[in-house]
Amino acid sequence: MDKINVGIIGATGYAGAELVRILAGHKDVEITVLTSRQYAGINFNKIYPAMEGIIDLKCEEYNQTTAEKADIFFLALPHKISMEIAPRFVAQGKKVIDLSADFRFAEPDIYEKHYQKHLAKELLKEAVYGLCEVYVNKIRKARLIGNPGCYPTGALLPLLPILKSRLIRPETIIIDAKSGVSGAGRSLSLTSQYCSAAESFKAYKIASHRHSPEIEEILQKEAGPSASITFVPHLIPMSRGIETTIYAQLTDNRIEEKHILNNLLSYYKGRHFIRVCKDRIPDTLAVRGTNFCDIGAKIDKKNNRLILLSAIDNLVKGAAGQAVQNMNIMLGLDERIGLDNAGYSL
Amino acid sequence: MDKINVGIIGATGYAGAELVRILAGHKDVEITVLTSRQYAGINFNKIYPAMEGIIDLKCEEYNQTTAEKADIFFLALPHKISMEIAPRFVAQGKKVIDLSADFRFAEPDIYEKHYQKHLAKELLKEAVYGLCEVYVNKIRKARLIGNPGCYPTGALLPLLPILKSRLIRPETIIIDAKSGVSGAGRSLSLTSQYCSAAESFKAYKIASHRHSPEIEEILQKEAGPSASITFVPHLIPMSRGIETTIYAQLTDNRIEEKHILNNLLSYYKGRHFIRVCKDRIPDTLAVRGTNFCDIGAKIDKKNNRLILLSAIDNLVKGAAGQAVQNMNIMLGLDERIGLDNAGYSL
Amino acid sequence: MDKINVGIIGATGYAGAELVRILAGHKDVEITVLTSRQYAGINFNKIYPAMEGIIDLKCEEYNQTTAEKADIFFLALPHKISMEIAPRFVAQGKKVIDLSADFRFAEPDIYEKHYQKHLAKELLKEAVYGLCEVYVNKIRKARLIGNPGCYPTGALLPLLPILKSRLIRPETIIIDAKSGVSGAGRSLSLTSQYCSAAESFKAYKIASHRHSPEIEEILQKEAGPSASITFVPHLIPMSRGIETTIYAQLTDNRIEEKHILNNLLSYYKGRHFIRVCKDRIPDTLAVRGTNFCDIGAKIDKKNNRLILLSAIDNLVKGAAGQAVQNMNIMLGLDERIGLDNAGYSL
Amino acid sequence: MDKINVGIIGATGYAGAELVRILAGHKDVEITVLTSRQYAGINFNKIYPAMEGIIDLKCEEYNQTTAEKADIFFLALPHKISMEIAPRFVAQGKKVIDLSADFRFAEPDIYEKHYQKHLAKELLKEAVYGLCEVYVNKIRKARLIGNPGCYPTGALLPLLPILKSRLIRPETIIIDAKSGVSGAGRSLSLTSQYCSAAESFKAYKIASHRHSPEIEEILQKEAGPSASITFVPHLIPMSRGIETTIYAQLTDNRIEEKHILNNLLSYYKGRHFIRVCKDRIPDTLAVRGTNFCDIGAKIDKKNNRLILLSAIDNLVKGAAGQAVQNMNIMLGLDERIGLDNAGYSL
Repeated sequence: MDKINVGIIGATGYAGAELVRILAGHKDVEITVLTSRQYAGINFNKIYPAMEGIIDLKCEEYNQTTAEKADIFFLALPHKISMEIAPRFVAQGKKVIDLSADFRFAEPDIYEKHYQKHLAKELLKEAVYGLCEVYVNKIRKARLIGNPGCYPTGALLPLLPILKSRLIRPETIIIDAKSGVSGAGRSLSLTSQYCSAAESFKAYKIASHRHSPEIEEILQKEAGPSASITFVPHLIPMSRGIETTIYAQLTDNRIEEKHILNNLLSYYKGRHFIRVCKDRIPDTLAVRGTNFCDIGAKIDKKNNRLILLSAIDNLVKGAAGQAVQNMNIMLGLDERIGLDNAGYSL
Repeated sequence: MDKINVGIIGATGYAGAELVRILAGHKDVEITVLTSRQYAGINFNKIYPAMEGIIDLKCEEYNQTTAEKADIFFLALPHKISMEIAPRFVAQGKKVIDLSADFRFAEPDIYEKHYQKHLAKELLKEAVYGLCEVYVNKIRKARLIGNPGCYPTGALLPLLPILKSRLIRPETIIIDAKSGVSGAGRSLSLTSQYCSAAESFKAYKIASHRHSPEIEEILQKEAGPSASITFVPHLIPMSRGIETTIYAQLTDNRIEEKHILNNLLSYYKGRHFIRVCKDRIPDTLAVRGTNFCDIGAKIDKKNNRLILLSAIDNLVKGAAGQAVQNMNIMLGLDERIGLDNAGYSL
Repeated sequence: MDKINVGIIGATGYAGAELVRILAGHKDVEITVLTSRQYAGINFNKIYPAMEGIIDLKCEEYNQTTAEKADIFFLALPHKISMEIAPRFVAQGKKVIDLSADFRFAEPDIYEKHYQKHLAKELLKEAVYGLCEVYVNKIRKARLIGNPGCYPTGALLPLLPILKSRLIRPETIIIDAKSGVSGAGRSLSLTSQYCSAAESFKAYKIASHRHSPEIEEILQKEAGPSASITFVPHLIPMSRGIETTIYAQLTDNRIEEKHILNNLLSYYKGRHFIRVCKDRIPDTLAVRGTNFCDIGAKIDKKNNRLILLSAIDNLVKGAAGQAVQNMNIMLGLDERIGLDNAGYSL
Repeated sequence: MDKINVGIIGATGYAGAELVRILAGHKDVEITVLTSRQYAGINFNKIYPAMEGIIDLKCEEYNQTTAEKADIFFLALPHKISMEIAPRFVAQGKKVIDLSADFRFAEPDIYEKHYQKHLAKELLKEAVYGLCEVYVNKIRKARLIGNPGCYPTGALLPLLPILKSRLIRPETIIIDAKSGVSGAGRSLSLTSQYCSAAESFKAYKIASHRHSPEIEEILQKEAGPSASITFVPHLIPMSRGIETTIYAQLTDNRIEEKHILNNLLSYYKGRHFIRVCKDRIPDTLAVRGTNFCDIGAKIDKKNNRLILLSAIDNLVKGAAGQAVQNMNIMLGLDERIGLDNAGYSL
């Protein structure tokens, strides 16, 4: 098979760099273009020396001819810039996987309430929310993917099967999520400084994070309008990983852990990247550097409350890995290609 | 004033060592005896070289004469051993602050359900739960203190005022707590190894941790029998600190953040170690190495849900610091003595 | 091509686990046996949950029949046990790559001085020191490899070409090496506890580490008997990685940085895993999780002194990765197979 | 005794904030003015919330009247700005402790070679290099202190006594130093970002760091013009601490470890903050948060080479702590006041 040419627009942020890392090891694609405004003209492996000997390609400035240089494009850009650029790629018949929030919302109103005016509403209509294990059939036929946010991925994968099966009450969902520092991106900030982050654990954007409406829209779409969540993200002093602890009232006090686990096992049957944990608890270390989403469940019998847990690598399953998985599905490839590496046990 | 002689039984575990650190800087006491089974005969500053030049005292084995060597004793021992030893100190007229769980429960039945048979029930009756800002009057007159657990301290301080004022529904309380690795103590274990803990964030003892009944007993005592909690602890890849995020349904949808904050400010008026955060979010880094408990609050209006947050240093306010604060109160000293150091901002 | 069957003896220590991780992704081999005394009967992926979905194989106890289960064996055992077991594999015509020190020394006397009585001196004679970029021709024909120590790998790769070319004075070499905590292995110890290691940087085994004679023997063999080193290892608060800073007097004050770099580039021409850094400084982060050895050089003109620097991942190029590279060479495969992954840039 | 009023110019950088932390706990002084260009008008405890309840003072912009507000001033400013401002304080009869490099060099030529044109050469003549244990007598009488750099403190304290006693050859000194990330200061930079620094250990400014001439000038002044060093700093993935490993040839092969240790013990007799380590190795964790400098020594007999080791907290003994110690000495106070806290053992 001829290799498929891929381009990464905004290659030098953390998600972009992770895309480069993964795609450089993907046997069926070739990276033909990397863009970066800040580093145009500089070899990518000068910016990320880990990539020396792995990739040898200069970053270039995005321009009108960029779209000609590949068949499929990943946009790892800030919100707003994505929706300005994406239509041009689509218009030229290119497939696009957008890692920003611009094409994640079915309802432009919700997007506009939490972000800004939407500039590509027509395209938004056809965009597919790229939560691979849930929307695989739509993804297969999509030409534009809104790649899910990191927190939504960690929250939706455990929640959706359980909520759809009406095992929990949709108005009682609380999501307590914790992310490594890379979630804040590569832009310089006091919060991301080593000395501010080390030995610091804290909540932020309490019940006001923009991933909250993203999660809610999908929950409501899949399980009805009553789904309503409280979402509180926290920052962990580590580079990678999201752990999500979800609380909800069970609909019936006869529901046991095994019902929950069987529900998850059944829903995700045959899906390589979902590991339902029967006798262990999801741990960010066990998924570090991989596309796995580990899911666990416990019941607090006394309070008739379910506790769902998940662990993902925010840069892989929560961003670049899921994006590549989306690409694989769109291209009719085995979804595991390029993503089948083992994690580091330490 | 003559210095008061203090002894630490079990001085070489993390809580014991923290007691030594704090008491060595306390102007009104003198450490006269340190016991350690494992390190008997060895100078304490050989075990913890940070203490060289600060304290020069050999560890000795606990024996029948130990009680004669001080006026007040801190027991930093494993559960069970405390209740075997504490009665001997009390019988000799010594004041005792016990850092184990043995004297924390008013109801021996609850203790016995979660720990083991209680061996000193008579003494348990008079023991005071040493949550300083809540039980200061009882502590003043106590001769035996059950020093609160680290998680209970972080959960009860924000919760109690709010629950007592009936601002939240007592049966809806969810406590999502996160602790640094030192909470597991100094005993060797795979979980506490650097390579297992770094880049690892995970829940453990989900809805089954023994601090759960400890929290619940106090909540019920103060606010009625309907208080019932789901408690999920997590491990953070850092040495010190507990962050606690608490969720509960508000009793009235007109309650606003300012009501919550004012309630806390009013309850803790004049209490140096409680910092109610009006315009910042509690962060473990800001309390590291100090006896402060930072408390914050947010309301998720849409779901009529309160989010309470707290941050403490698990080894200070969550153990040794609160123990020294208890001692200060018992001795009629200013509760801040020895505990008024500034935290490290990095 | 049929897959080659490989076995790992002592699979659950850190080096063993890293071998499993790498070999599980090696397209030309199949892991057919994993042994572990401690975890016999337990699935490997229960011990290292990162491996769930990657490998599904029970650990078994080593016994007389183990040798029949594969064609090539990796011994990731403590010193001494390796030399007891290795002869049995060799006698049955198996290839052996030993990660202990037992087959690293050409001179049994040196081994015996620093370790213990050697039990397989005959075999020692034919064993090849598996420093891949230096001894590739011998490795190709070997049936027993003594896989180099982590520190020796990081020190010898930069030093050997320079010393052989007589650019530095052999009696002036000082090696200041720094390793992540995983270098101490998985055995429980106070030093490896998270709370002991975090925020702790210190030297250990100063001028008395057993990797010192290993380095010296190779230097003397390659560049004459006058080579003599001072070797001081340090512990870094991180999981993986060794940085090595080497100091030596230049033989001629006209030698410039470019001569050193060119010497290195020439010596390692065509060797994928050596990255000579011309305009950057070796950094453990850039090699994390990879088999690369990054090498840099600076000259302190005023003192006519060379500073050589290298960075490796102690568990990969410093242990399991180099072991697999040795296997590839022994089997006539491309040495990069299974080892061509990109590192994580964060 | 009336409290002495102190001011901190540039209070919100890391060194400034550490000064605030230490001085807030100093029983004989009162902080009366904090300046900050960036945060003028903002309460210091909003910038460093750890200080809430400890200090309640607004930052103000430095101006002509600042000097009137205190008796002694700490300048925690960037190089160049210090020498512009210091003369104004001195002219008004104030004592000044400058933490920049501007008043550290006796020879303006050396300063100008490595920094920039010196703007206060007259004042430079009388400035005292504030290495407390070495220059205590001069400090006592000084009105302007050039507070030593962090690396120079860690290097000079072990080296000076040994070099002055001619135990090592002055032209053979190699200093391999390692610092926590806070050494880079609070300014935003990619290097200081959590994700760049975690799991990263690397050298920087190899044999070209500006602390090198600072060290050399003092060594030459104290032990003759032949002293010449190679200085290589490295960055450790932790917040605080400097470990320094120093190599030098012994002048006589009969010199033993005990001679070295006795020399150090004798030189630093009675000096509280120097802990000569006879049976342990200096460790950054043991000095974290304290003003101690731990010093150790080993001899590599075979190579007749001395290895000196030291550990300090770069922000305390390497900056703010030594500055306060200088103040204590200048004011005739016990040098330990405000600096006698125990370190954290974890």
